[in-house]
Amino acid sequence: MFITFEGLDGVGKTTQVELLHNHLNQRHDVLTIKEPGTTEIGNTVREILLQKDKDLETETELFLFLASRSELVSKVIKPSLMQGKIVICDRFNESTIAYQGYGRGIGAYRVYNMCMFATQNITPNIIFYLHAPLEYLIENRFSGKHDRIENSGVSFYKKVQDGYEDWLETLPNVRKIDATQNIEKVSSDIAAYVDEFIANEKRK
Amino acid sequence: MFITFEGLDGVGKTTQVELLHNHLNQRHDVLTIKEPGTTEIGNTVREILLQKDKDLETETELFLFLASRSELVSKVIKPSLMQGKIVICDRFNESTIAYQGYGRGIGAYRVYNMCMFATQNITPNIIFYLHAPLEYLIENRFSGKHDRIENSGVSFYKKVQDGYEDWLETLPNVRKIDATQNIEKVSSDIAAYVDEFIANEKRK
Repeated sequence: MFITFEGLDGVGKTTQVELLHNHLNQRHDVLTIKEPGTTEIGNTVREILLQKDKDLETETELFLFLASRSELVSKVIKPSLMQGKIVICDRFNESTIAYQGYGRGIGAYRVYNMCMFATQNITPNIIFYLHAPLEYLIENRFSGKHDRIENSGVSFYKKVQDGYEDWLETLPNVRKIDATQNIEKVSSDIAAYVDEFIANEKRK
Repeated sequence: MFITFEGLDGVGKTTQVELLHNHLNQRHDVLTIKEPGTTEIGNTVREILLQKDKDLETETELFLFLASRSELVSKVIKPSLMQGKIVICDRFNESTIAYQGYGRGIGAYRVYNMCMFATQNITPNIIFYLHAPLEYLIENRFSGKHDRIENSGVSFYKKVQDGYEDWLETLPNVRKIDATQNIEKVSSDIAAYVDEFIANEKRK
């Protein structure tokens, strides 16, 4: 079973990924992944993206994410799913579509096609989309991290958020979550949804 | 003016690139590029490809080449062409189409589309395609480098060569050169062709 978390920076994905991991880990074999990273190539790519992101071409940034992801899918995600593990990813293809496709203006379908090629058409069983108004995030979550939003600009994040909304609307496996609720409420909703999903799968 | 050299390993590209550079350098501003490399990202990518190529996924290899190339085109090739330089590349998009598209089986048009995106549709004025029968290369050029051909196998190089032939047949700007001739004959043919091309451009 393959679960991904999507949403803007600061919306609480990493916390919720960890809480879901701990919840599922009691009864299941769970692997949690934050990309880029995990594989050797992924780590190298992450270093490039972190060190030199101001100077990177938009296309280069996209290809580096895809290089990292194709390694990750072939070497980690697919083998783990074949072993029956639950794999949780903090960001996956939908991030690339929202950030590079919409945000950087490469185009959603162009990025989608390359993502599908890079990931051998793997598709999450559930995409948790954590959502909060951009104004809320700027006020509540970006405090002390003003460099982050200022580097790319509010208009960039607006495009990414609109992109997420536009793209995810068409997908059948998205669970949109109000991320302005408190952490415990969000995590118990997510855990209940996954437990129900697993129970339904077993009944099939 | 943008000139690329294509052909199998061992066919003599690097030598001919150097000889053409020296020929043109007397009267023109010439920049010669061997990729991946040249840019910071390119150098990092080259290290990954050299160190870990046995273990790299086919898709990852492609994305790393494209990441390197998009940097190279935006940061080096396009600015140089805008300044009126002659840019010579030892391998470019056609290598990726032949090696990854045909050789690794990703598909020529899929690779072509990604190459065009990575390189902002830049197209060489002349593609020199250095050609020799595979048997000739194995006997004469791969001696002492048997690890290279054995790593990928003769059948891989056969696919790459057939791919080159198939793909380049359709392009208008290809000059196919018999690379079994001696080095001086090959280089003087190339130099004469480029000189004539430049003279014709000036007449326009």
